[in-house]
Amino acid sequence: MTSKQTTVKPWAGRFSESTDSFVESFTESVSFDKRLAHFDIEGSLAHVKMLAHVDVLTDEECQHISEGLLQIRQEIESGNFKWQSALEDVHMNIESALVSAVGEVGKKLHTGRSRNDQIATDLRLYLRVIVDQLCGQLVSVQSELLGIAEQEAETILPGLTHMQSAQPITFGHHMLAWYEMLKRDHQRLRDCQVRIDVMPLGSAALAGTSFPIDREFSANLLGFDTVSSNSLDAVSDRDFVIEFVSACSIIMMHLSRFSEELVLWMSPQFGFIDLGDAWCTGSSIMPQKKNPDLPELVRGKTGRVYGALMGLLTLMKAQPLAYNRDNQEDKESLFDVIDTVQACLQAYAGMLPTMVVKRPAMLEAAERGYGTATDMADYLVKKGLPFRDAHEVVGKAVHFAIESNKRLAELSIDELRSFSDDLEEDVYAVLELSGSVAARDHTGGTAVKQVQAAIQQARDYLASLN
Amino acid sequence: MTSKQTTVKPWAGRFSESTDSFVESFTESVSFDKRLAHFDIEGSLAHVKMLAHVDVLTDEECQHISEGLLQIRQEIESGNFKWQSALEDVHMNIESALVSAVGEVGKKLHTGRSRNDQIATDLRLYLRVIVDQLCGQLVSVQSELLGIAEQEAETILPGLTHMQSAQPITFGHHMLAWYEMLKRDHQRLRDCQVRIDVMPLGSAALAGTSFPIDREFSANLLGFDTVSSNSLDAVSDRDFVIEFVSACSIIMMHLSRFSEELVLWMSPQFGFIDLGDAWCTGSSIMPQKKNPDLPELVRGKTGRVYGALMGLLTLMKAQPLAYNRDNQEDKESLFDVIDTVQACLQAYAGMLPTMVVKRPAMLEAAERGYGTATDMADYLVKKGLPFRDAHEVVGKAVHFAIESNKRLAELSIDELRSFSDDLEEDVYAVLELSGSVAARDHTGGTAVKQVQAAIQQARDYLASLN
Amino acid sequence: MTSKQTTVKPWAGRFSESTDSFVESFTESVSFDKRLAHFDIEGSLAHVKMLAHVDVLTDEECQHISEGLLQIRQEIESGNFKWQSALEDVHMNIESALVSAVGEVGKKLHTGRSRNDQIATDLRLYLRVIVDQLCGQLVSVQSELLGIAEQEAETILPGLTHMQSAQPITFGHHMLAWYEMLKRDHQRLRDCQVRIDVMPLGSAALAGTSFPIDREFSANLLGFDTVSSNSLDAVSDRDFVIEFVSACSIIMMHLSRFSEELVLWMSPQFGFIDLGDAWCTGSSIMPQKKNPDLPELVRGKTGRVYGALMGLLTLMKAQPLAYNRDNQEDKESLFDVIDTVQACLQAYAGMLPTMVVKRPAMLEAAERGYGTATDMADYLVKKGLPFRDAHEVVGKAVHFAIESNKRLAELSIDELRSFSDDLEEDVYAVLELSGSVAARDHTGGTAVKQVQAAIQQARDYLASLN
Amino acid sequence: MTSKQTTVKPWAGRFSESTDSFVESFTESVSFDKRLAHFDIEGSLAHVKMLAHVDVLTDEECQHISEGLLQIRQEIESGNFKWQSALEDVHMNIESALVSAVGEVGKKLHTGRSRNDQIATDLRLYLRVIVDQLCGQLVSVQSELLGIAEQEAETILPGLTHMQSAQPITFGHHMLAWYEMLKRDHQRLRDCQVRIDVMPLGSAALAGTSFPIDREFSANLLGFDTVSSNSLDAVSDRDFVIEFVSACSIIMMHLSRFSEELVLWMSPQFGFIDLGDAWCTGSSIMPQKKNPDLPELVRGKTGRVYGALMGLLTLMKAQPLAYNRDNQEDKESLFDVIDTVQACLQAYAGMLPTMVVKRPAMLEAAERGYGTATDMADYLVKKGLPFRDAHEVVGKAVHFAIESNKRLAELSIDELRSFSDDLEEDVYAVLELSGSVAARDHTGGTAVKQVQAAIQQARDYLASLN
Repeated sequence: MTSKQTTVKPWAGRFSESTDSFVESFTESVSFDKRLAHFDIEGSLAHVKMLAHVDVLTDEECQHISEGLLQIRQEIESGNFKWQSALEDVHMNIESALVSAVGEVGKKLHTGRSRNDQIATDLRLYLRVIVDQLCGQLVSVQSELLGIAEQEAETILPGLTHMQSAQPITFGHHMLAWYEMLKRDHQRLRDCQVRIDVMPLGSAALAGTSFPIDREFSANLLGFDTVSSNSLDAVSDRDFVIEFVSACSIIMMHLSRFSEELVLWMSPQFGFIDLGDAWCTGSSIMPQKKNPDLPELVRGKTGRVYGALMGLLTLMKAQPLAYNRDNQEDKESLFDVIDTVQACLQAYAGMLPTMVVKRPAMLEAAERGYGTATDMADYLVKKGLPFRDAHEVVGKAVHFAIESNKRLAELSIDELRSFSDDLEEDVYAVLELSGSVAARDHTGGTAVKQVQAAIQQARDYLASLN
Repeated sequence: MTSKQTTVKPWAGRFSESTDSFVESFTESVSFDKRLAHFDIEGSLAHVKMLAHVDVLTDEECQHISEGLLQIRQEIESGNFKWQSALEDVHMNIESALVSAVGEVGKKLHTGRSRNDQIATDLRLYLRVIVDQLCGQLVSVQSELLGIAEQEAETILPGLTHMQSAQPITFGHHMLAWYEMLKRDHQRLRDCQVRIDVMPLGSAALAGTSFPIDREFSANLLGFDTVSSNSLDAVSDRDFVIEFVSACSIIMMHLSRFSEELVLWMSPQFGFIDLGDAWCTGSSIMPQKKNPDLPELVRGKTGRVYGALMGLLTLMKAQPLAYNRDNQEDKESLFDVIDTVQACLQAYAGMLPTMVVKRPAMLEAAERGYGTATDMADYLVKKGLPFRDAHEVVGKAVHFAIESNKRLAELSIDELRSFSDDLEEDVYAVLELSGSVAARDHTGGTAVKQVQAAIQQARDYLASLN
Repeated sequence: MTSKQTTVKPWAGRFSESTDSFVESFTESVSFDKRLAHFDIEGSLAHVKMLAHVDVLTDEECQHISEGLLQIRQEIESGNFKWQSALEDVHMNIESALVSAVGEVGKKLHTGRSRNDQIATDLRLYLRVIVDQLCGQLVSVQSELLGIAEQEAETILPGLTHMQSAQPITFGHHMLAWYEMLKRDHQRLRDCQVRIDVMPLGSAALAGTSFPIDREFSANLLGFDTVSSNSLDAVSDRDFVIEFVSACSIIMMHLSRFSEELVLWMSPQFGFIDLGDAWCTGSSIMPQKKNPDLPELVRGKTGRVYGALMGLLTLMKAQPLAYNRDNQEDKESLFDVIDTVQACLQAYAGMLPTMVVKRPAMLEAAERGYGTATDMADYLVKKGLPFRDAHEVVGKAVHFAIESNKRLAELSIDELRSFSDDLEEDVYAVLELSGSVAARDHTGGTAVKQVQAAIQQARDYLASLN
Repeated sequence: MTSKQTTVKPWAGRFSESTDSFVESFTESVSFDKRLAHFDIEGSLAHVKMLAHVDVLTDEECQHISEGLLQIRQEIESGNFKWQSALEDVHMNIESALVSAVGEVGKKLHTGRSRNDQIATDLRLYLRVIVDQLCGQLVSVQSELLGIAEQEAETILPGLTHMQSAQPITFGHHMLAWYEMLKRDHQRLRDCQVRIDVMPLGSAALAGTSFPIDREFSANLLGFDTVSSNSLDAVSDRDFVIEFVSACSIIMMHLSRFSEELVLWMSPQFGFIDLGDAWCTGSSIMPQKKNPDLPELVRGKTGRVYGALMGLLTLMKAQPLAYNRDNQEDKESLFDVIDTVQACLQAYAGMLPTMVVKRPAMLEAAERGYGTATDMADYLVKKGLPFRDAHEVVGKAVHFAIESNKRLAELSIDELRSFSDDLEEDVYAVLELSGSVAARDHTGGTAVKQVQAAIQQARDYLASLN
């Protein structure tokens, strides 16, 4: 289980044995934290510029190091950099390459900092960009939703509660419900970004450094909003990661619900929509199958993101201050969350435009199910009956209609009046789907003109974000 | 398993059998949602005032209903109200009592609304208050922390990473790390509160209502910031609950870490602190025991809150729109989270003032452990050695000191110089704890004057919140 | 926040201040662990009998204490016992009552044990009974499933994958799938019970006791399978609780899936089943509604049990040995899990007999959806075509049929033969639903006679459990 | 977002558009399920042998296909196989390569099965092997523990509860506590293996197949214990995965607790142990640091496994029968769990032999802390005092000793007797650590001879496993 190890560790001075090779592979993080290389170098460039600014480095040293770092960044970005797991992590790989590239002066890079503040800085620089990307993707999906909502502003389908027909609504209204959820998701990410946009650099290992650093100078170079106020906290806390993953979990929760609806709507029992052939797959055995794999997979991937959240909360539970090695475990699940949510949003942005809305099937379903019974009760209330009594009258009429296997509008006026004298010929208008929809004419209601106004407001809002 | 049922349900019109008694007890929610009674009545009062404003009710009807509701509220608050689980939930219990109290006019209360928008309104009214309370409790704990930080601004203890001595820090600095975490917790709650402060009332079952309601009027009465934009979304989404519980999970994560430290510090191995006798308990068998039960329990209760978060995320996973009965399950875990976090914050606010800081034990621990080795490396850097080389020199010196069973400052100058000629007599000053601490003199650093400045800033910030 | 406290604690000797009243209420557990009173006394009775057996107590002392305990048990069971939270937990409440009842000799009860081994013993005694109860409930639901399976052994419905029509199956076969899941759930509980059935008593606080106890004697009295092998482990581990809750989580996972199906099947879009009026509820606003609340609530309660599992795993994460106060937090979630799973199984046992199976709707759905396309491919394979080619031929035929808006069996023989010459008149028999079902005639297949044989096997298995 | 796609899908017959390239990459699973290739081919070999046995294939066809499969397996194992994500998964990659290798006859491989039963079979074959491996690894760690226990059977350290000194125990006894936990972990895995060892093959897509298959024949070839009883259940359930991951979560829970202890014991405050230099790493900034990274990382990785469990439970929540694409998401987290647990057990097996036990530090800590106070109470009980009174007497004595800053044994006999006349000179023997340990002489107690007996029993048990 033990074997030889070759690379000399940058902290080897105090040790009498070299690291076991299993330990090297168990503890290395470069296989995943190399994803942060761009930001690691961005942070180092600012760090050396600051060190020169406060005269810890000469301008010349600063320039040599900076040139070396830029050259390494190019190598990394062109795929020519050779990562070594014996060098543990992205930081030591780059520092080691720097010393090879620029010689002794490279050994001055790590002056006045530690990997503890460095990794926290890298993560924050990276997540700040990711939030921007995710917000852009959310807006893309929202724009698709608004397009569909506009096209289907008058399309009637049965609104369901408890999966039972409740009241008729428009498909445009339904799409706007999804728009609203994603809007909150967007706001949550932006709120989180404020807490991400804080610079830990300068906290060093845990206590700050004895060099006369100028943290505001570095923060300014890196475009950070502010600098962290306490070095112990800055190197050890990961609540910005947990908060971000929690916001992503809510995004996935929303997408899982939307996916559930797409899967149901595409089943032959509903038949409300179809998705493009290019966005579905078939079966290895059943030749007739066309499956809504994308929403199914998105629904399934929800668990993955929830799991990451639980993993991160567990990771931090009961860790004493300050930095512990446990924290290395924050990155893989964070990266997986980001990849997952980005792919799922891309899936939705691509799939929604292929969705075919089958209006006749929706309409037919809305006509079954006594969806306007509430309107009939409201009609009675307007005639003076207390709502609770009106509810009971209509409940009995529905019971009779079910027994007679008829829709409410198919009951004769005499049949209807056997339940209440207040029911007159004009009740039939109230039992119409379109009348029911039109009547819900207030902020947030399903009336077509309310839906159209909401679409316009939403378009204005999205436009205002840029 | 089945037995007789007696109370007539308000929706019984359509049914031919009465509800099974097991079903009644399985589906009832009044045993826990009665906690919302105050807010349920607050919402109903605003609702009837609005109905009168738009002439759906007469002013007289409005007044009768309002008086009835106020009287019921008084009964509830004095503990004289008789809750009936056969009446399912807080809403139906109150409506039923209202009809008993004011007669037929009470049956008009439920005009133009549904339990779906009603419960969402109740929850939001309630949570808005809870956020205020929690923020107040966070500030209380923060104030205790600032008091201790001030008193212990110069107390030196070993800062730990990986539970190993890293660098000397001050206890004041350490307390400020906790202050910072709670500050972010406070901000997260306030951000969440913006998304809580939205009125769903008027969304009715899922589609809005056919009555000419004025939602802005109700919102104004209830002090809501804004009204919800989509009725389907308003009755079915619970992301404000999840976001709130997620913020609470992070609070508990922080408290679990703090608790871990208190438990460690109070162990005989550390001996850094003691907690008041009145805040500890003993053992039924071991007469000598004095246990830090409070931090232990707080640490344990973390799992409870994490579990509630996971439960709520699971609850909402893949639920199609709009309201499903599943959502009833959001309340018990939410309430348990609130009770838990409030009790834990109360525990901290009460326990911290009893904490005795044992300065000599902290100092003695700081003197062991080579905590100023970094300062020695920085000293060499200032003499011109690249940091990476300085690190190696000091690593070797530490190795030698450990073998010799000495502190670094106990090595003779000759011994020291055997590792580097750059080491001169003035290095001993650098190896002093107080010098090390004082040298970390920048924003966020552990130097005493930085700590004092941070305390002042924090006090100003807390004062600005009111 | 601090107030007076009155009851003298049994461990007060070493303390100079009495417990703060907030601390009392924060740390007490009697409000929930009193549920274990019956088992606590059972354990104490065995403990004193053992102490007498090894001559630590006299027979007379043993008898006095036992009589006192039995009297207290009666008081508890008749509801006349006065629990005091100042006495912390179920153990101290009972010990205190014992001393009141029998005098000084009662103070000898706690000889040679600690609350640490006592609570672990109580929990194991309790859980052993609960597993028996749950297994009985699982069998009840399984029996209902077998009854339905028998009645509907020939009822055809569309088997779904990806919520798309896949192949025709029988409803009896479908019910047996649920039977199988619950069978594994039952086995998991029994496996767990083996690890529950281990006696920790005698481990005392953590190290055992200096009294000459006979643990096998106590275990025998309490009907334990075996005694624990290590005292430190016995008082601190809770993996039997986690394993139990994990088995319960899988039960709930299964019930959540079953519930999802019931909710879908009862929707008007499916219309496959109806549930009895007595097992459904209505709406406060929509008079026509009849909602499948029970399966919805069961589905929702899944999150609650998952959450408890996560909470318990978090609770135990990184706890050093041996007992820590954190562990007190294991009970409330465990109890909630038990209550939840028991109620959900009761709900299923009661609801399933009211389920009305709508055979015509199932049959009609099966006839749509090209469910016998695989049979047509198998037909071609039997004619010599490789399966992959047969699959492609049928895929094209299905594509043509969809475009023509016809079922496969409605295509003329000429139309069919345009896809493959191997298709002859006898293919129409293969396209029949009943032929397709009958052809799946092997262990585990959906053929009616396989289903009937499986029912018989299942009945024999359940009978063998007693 | 859309681009060209080139490979023709095996199910393309029914589709009019080819798959979008994003969809291909979003839905492919071959990048991770190729890990199952060995078992996929094992299953296919048995499948074709069975098809020949029942005359669906000729012996010659069976032989051609088998040779092709063996050749492909060789290519895969030598790393020469070219996996294509356009071919979706491991199954289609292999089938496609088979057709290339052996021509038309390869298209007959998929006769009478589906990817649904195939993947379930692959997973079960794979997990069966993994359980064997994990059990072997657990035994390795247990053997290390027994070795240490034997060596340190007489080493005394303070047993802690609530992180406070409770009673003296031996380090051997402490090691055996870990042995016991891993023993249960081993048993849980074996119990789970019984439910893994069931063959789903023959369930086809969901209903079985119309070919005259002989499932017992295949099961026999594959060494399965039994065949699944219901095809719907067999293709859709994943509870064997969840149960396995749940057992792994408990393993990690145990390792997290052990890791916590190692981290604490290696801190300078405890100083109970040291870990080999080759098994620790240093700091990039602090030259003196030697960190226990391995236990820290193991502790951190606990969250990862808990998260996977939560992810899988979420994945399956409320999925209707039978197979849905969501299930594809079971594999990556399962594989990650396996890799994680295997690496962590390897870490422990390698690290434990490097552990240096610092007996003097342990002894010295045991001498502080009043750990024999319980023995003094027991002494008084043996003199006739009721335990509860003895407890109080000793509590007061401890209080006095703390105030006097003395150990109990340092109090004079007069001082002692001021608390109880029953205390005589022979009490000092009872206050000795070694006497206290020796007195706990019963099954599971910490007495040296009990520890030695337990070690012997454990060795016999491990030997009996082979």
